[in-house]
Amino acid sequence: MYPDEQLDDLERDGLKILQKKEGFKYGLDAVLLAWFVELKSHTKLLDIGTGSGIIPLLLTARRAEVDITALDIQPEYVEMARRSVALNHLENIEILQLDAMQLDQHFGPGSFSLVVTNPPYYKHRIASPHVSKAIARSEIKLTLEGLIRNAAFVLKPRGELYMIYHPSRLSELFKVFRMYQLEPKKVCMIHPARDKEANLVLIKAIKQGGEELRVLPPLIVYEEGKYTREILAIYDEVKIERDRSDA
Amino acid sequence: MYPDEQLDDLERDGLKILQKKEGFKYGLDAVLLAWFVELKSHTKLLDIGTGSGIIPLLLTARRAEVDITALDIQPEYVEMARRSVALNHLENIEILQLDAMQLDQHFGPGSFSLVVTNPPYYKHRIASPHVSKAIARSEIKLTLEGLIRNAAFVLKPRGELYMIYHPSRLSELFKVFRMYQLEPKKVCMIHPARDKEANLVLIKAIKQGGEELRVLPPLIVYEEGKYTREILAIYDEVKIERDRSDA
Repeated sequence: MYPDEQLDDLERDGLKILQKKEGFKYGLDAVLLAWFVELKSHTKLLDIGTGSGIIPLLLTARRAEVDITALDIQPEYVEMARRSVALNHLENIEILQLDAMQLDQHFGPGSFSLVVTNPPYYKHRIASPHVSKAIARSEIKLTLEGLIRNAAFVLKPRGELYMIYHPSRLSELFKVFRMYQLEPKKVCMIHPARDKEANLVLIKAIKQGGEELRVLPPLIVYEEGKYTREILAIYDEVKIERDRSDA
Repeated sequence: MYPDEQLDDLERDGLKILQKKEGFKYGLDAVLLAWFVELKSHTKLLDIGTGSGIIPLLLTARRAEVDITALDIQPEYVEMARRSVALNHLENIEILQLDAMQLDQHFGPGSFSLVVTNPPYYKHRIASPHVSKAIARSEIKLTLEGLIRNAAFVLKPRGELYMIYHPSRLSELFKVFRMYQLEPKKVCMIHPARDKEANLVLIKAIKQGGEELRVLPPLIVYEEGKYTREILAIYDEVKIERDRSDA
């Protein structure tokens, strides 16, 4: 463990995660995405842009028998995520240093039945003194079109894509989905409060799926300054600390 | 007034509406759509598929100085809607018998700044002994693609389209919007209850608008078997009877 890192407890089976003290740390969006994924046993799963490896760890906490490949373009994050996997003695997670824009050079078409991604939400560079934060939040190293093209390439027919995104780009996302034969099947809008516009959206798409969208009951994050019961229940389900305030 | 008709009170400025006793009657969706429309003075507004004329009447109740053209393909509804307009002594509403699929034969391009429509939600024919109900609910007389093509034709650049639709077809709707340079700008999901999937969605699109979608706070219709306060407030705003139970 390096001086610029911290070790956080996921409060589930003793799982721990290394995170950069000053870099991009996981937040509510990762927890929501891990909760939203419909896991089946023996799924071959790819996490695109894994960062610290939070999604593989949260998914492993949910169900250990999933075979997870996770990739990130930033070598220092790949190396740290590998150490998190090692210190948890997990053998179901492989962390690769790969460019999400060039997955066809590393995987065959239809290699995975499930893809998860928590991509950058913003087209334009988010100002941050930390390059890793800027890369995690804005489209510096990838484009939405490139991400979806690569995700669709590695997904087998009827394979499932789960992602969390900003609702302002939902129309654009649906357009790009259509370019690569991905059909949105479920969305769940996330509102910071009951009377606020959605600031996150969970999306499930199916490769070559039929045209029929389900809009799940909305998730409301805060009520009177505290997490709502539904958000606490989600934290409970994925078993991590409940008192974080980052969204 | 014919024997198969009933006269209903909109409870606003004494406005009344004729409806067929056994035909398609307006419901919560019309009330929500009329509430959702952002009215500006001196707007040239077109209502496509007006039926009994409920949307023009509700919009007139909100703001009298709007110039409304409303059309329907069914002659008996056009004739009844005209009598509703006449008995309310309204001069801002013109009801035309027109096929929504052939608007280019009657209007020039860009003739309207605002289009409202509560179209059939279903692709496949809804079984109903009443032809007018079947026409109002399923794509017998029009297709979604044809409707949007015609709406886009009569809208001027930056003109606004407001509609209510079924969320299951939102991805398809966005695709068709894109074909005709309509960009979705706002959606509002309507859930029958807090823990139920959305069964209606309000949509605002702008012709040649920029790519940025806002997802408004959700509307929840029922709580413990009664209308929620927000729905009562909407009824109050458009000033019609509150104790209807049709959704």
